[in-house]
Amino acid sequence: MYITSVDRVEEWELDVEGALGVKVKYLLHERMGAKRLQLRVFIVDVGGHTHLEKHKHEHEVFILQGKALVRGGDAEVIVKEGSVIFIPSWEEHQFRNVGEEKLQFLCTKETIE
Amino acid sequence: MYITSVDRVEEWELDVEGALGVKVKYLLHERMGAKRLQLRVFIVDVGGHTHLEKHKHEHEVFILQGKALVRGGDAEVIVKEGSVIFIPSWEEHQFRNVGEEKLQFLCTKETIE
Repeated sequence: MYITSVDRVEEWELDVEGALGVKVKYLLHERMGAKRLQLRVFIVDVGGHTHLEKHKHEHEVFILQGKALVRGGDAEVIVKEGSVIFIPSWEEHQFRNVGEEKLQFLCTKETIE
Repeated sequence: MYITSVDRVEEWELDVEGALGVKVKYLLHERMGAKRLQLRVFIVDVGGHTHLEKHKHEHEVFILQGKALVRGGDAEVIVKEGSVIFIPSWEEHQFRNVGEEKLQFLCTKETIE
């Protein structure tokens, strides 16, 4: 068993073209023994957004705080605390903070492509 | 993209020997297109607990609310909101609500064994 807390995990600026005001904490990954799955928390400033991207791995997302406009393929939907989102393989997606407080969400990523 | 919310997902009593006062909501799984990973939320009454179990699939757990005594192998640790737990393959584990409010946690489970 490995235990940590969101408060104790280092925060990194997401330095990717097209991303604005996004920080990430790598909560669980291979270094903790998690061979198959990574768990991250993203923190997005008011007005910020992740970069538009698509890739083979699926995402499962849980909104912890705030209000987001999530784009998945051609759809755009407003989500908030308690919303759960599944992004399938190769679907283009982006998260925008359209609220008035920080946006925080958990996001899974498979380690094995 | 598939979107839902914790509030909109049906709650089931976890009817397993050794579990007490545990409800579960199946947030994401194969029916939503999630081929590799299931995301569930467990709700445990004050004084309740999951059953002690071990299995091949790993768990990644995020505590949303409450206070739990989590057992993993021979270790027992108190966790609370914001705690993140990794349970490796075949490690015996159990979650007990030792707080004074409902315990709620997210828990992943791989679909492919």
